[in-house]
Amino acid sequence: MRKVFYISDGTAITAEILGHAVLSQFEIEFEQITIPFVETIDKATEVAEQINNSFFNQQPALVFHSIVDEAIRDVIDQCNGISYDFLNTFVAPLEKQLGVKAQPKTHRTHGIANEAYSSRIDAINYSLDNDDGISLKHLEKAELILVGVSRCGKTPSSLYLAMQFGIATANYPFICEDMENLKLPPELKKHKAKIFGLTIDPFRLHEIRTQRRADSKYASFRQCRAEVKEVEMLYRRERIPFIDTTKHSVEEITAKILDIAGLKRKMF
Amino acid sequence: MRKVFYISDGTAITAEILGHAVLSQFEIEFEQITIPFVETIDKATEVAEQINNSFFNQQPALVFHSIVDEAIRDVIDQCNGISYDFLNTFVAPLEKQLGVKAQPKTHRTHGIANEAYSSRIDAINYSLDNDDGISLKHLEKAELILVGVSRCGKTPSSLYLAMQFGIATANYPFICEDMENLKLPPELKKHKAKIFGLTIDPFRLHEIRTQRRADSKYASFRQCRAEVKEVEMLYRRERIPFIDTTKHSVEEITAKILDIAGLKRKMF
Repeated sequence: MRKVFYISDGTAITAEILGHAVLSQFEIEFEQITIPFVETIDKATEVAEQINNSFFNQQPALVFHSIVDEAIRDVIDQCNGISYDFLNTFVAPLEKQLGVKAQPKTHRTHGIANEAYSSRIDAINYSLDNDDGISLKHLEKAELILVGVSRCGKTPSSLYLAMQFGIATANYPFICEDMENLKLPPELKKHKAKIFGLTIDPFRLHEIRTQRRADSKYASFRQCRAEVKEVEMLYRRERIPFIDTTKHSVEEITAKILDIAGLKRKMF
Repeated sequence: MRKVFYISDGTAITAEILGHAVLSQFEIEFEQITIPFVETIDKATEVAEQINNSFFNQQPALVFHSIVDEAIRDVIDQCNGISYDFLNTFVAPLEKQLGVKAQPKTHRTHGIANEAYSSRIDAINYSLDNDDGISLKHLEKAELILVGVSRCGKTPSSLYLAMQFGIATANYPFICEDMENLKLPPELKKHKAKIFGLTIDPFRLHEIRTQRRADSKYASFRQCRAEVKEVEMLYRRERIPFIDTTKHSVEEITAKILDIAGLKRKMF
């Protein structure tokens, strides 16, 4: 396979995301190598050497980079790989447009210097402390409350909402015992405007639960179907917005929820 | 403030991250507006209208986009904003380089179609189930075991490792009662090659713990200093690699850990 390098003098997360988004437009498989923290000329020279030795069928490696330090960038740009320079490609035209010079002193993304950072850690801690209905005492601090049956995707979604978007998200499970005469508990009803429902295809739910507890009533298709039906009826009765998680990634589910709920993403 | 739009026919996470990385090179504040799921011409026309009405001091808005659908991209490109196109800027030169046409049919990043996706959810569930030393029974399944004093950053780091990089990460706290005669528990010792230590500035630890439990022995500077000292001695004695989390973001901490531990990131 042809080799692709993602290189940065920072975490290389940006280089990876860009390269991966672009390459995913091609139906080709690549061998992907990420090299973060290329912070010295020595290290850059070593990496350039590695790239130079990475021909595949006489084709040079592809190199996606996001390097703030100019001297280090020069070393990487002069290797035999085909370079795609994420920062400079956009920074130069932006300098013209904005009429100011960039101040490429440090990696400011993914840094703790960002003021929003501690609110993000707070959001993560909030979501962990209010996972799975552990506590219904702090719901006034929630920006969003996800509800749904067990294993429909509440926890990964809550954590992603906190981690990526800085949204303090509680989540509450409707459990088997609640199913007869299903109602919103009064503690939740008070915060109805913040509630968002998740649902899932009963067959997929049956598969997921079977992995956790095979041959249980909990995992049976019959039980899964009954729970999903009850919960969706509740959503409709209470006019709770909801989405189906079955065929979507955590990114898609959470971006969709924020879009529908009209919540603004925070940025770090 | 000048307005910036992040626009996509998908989640807009890529457009947001890339735009944010580029703009962070400038010492200017912007009003940032994210519009995901622009999936129809009607919606695109509406968004173009919104951009056209977003002049600030006679300056048009900046538009960072990552739009797979060509017709929708055309609508956005024709508005009055200054467009920066993350996909096309790189896709066209890559087509030449690779000698094949891109197949821009769907958003393949952030989609569930990705085979690695279920291993990622498994990693998230693993990290949650093995958070804070809850269970020491499944450590053979861990790819990484983070250790450290309470509140030094183990949990957010573990979750980020699972979520962003797909690494199944357990974490184990050294608690106050362990401090006299601090040793690695035998269950951990067996997996020593997978252990990575976190440490933190005692004064910062004191601040963080004070937020949780003010005026407690647990939060006292004296206790924080003693715990950090003991734990760092253990790391050195046992030759456990460790890093200081004090001045670093979750992205930086986790990218550094993977780099030092030589673990390969997974990509989704």
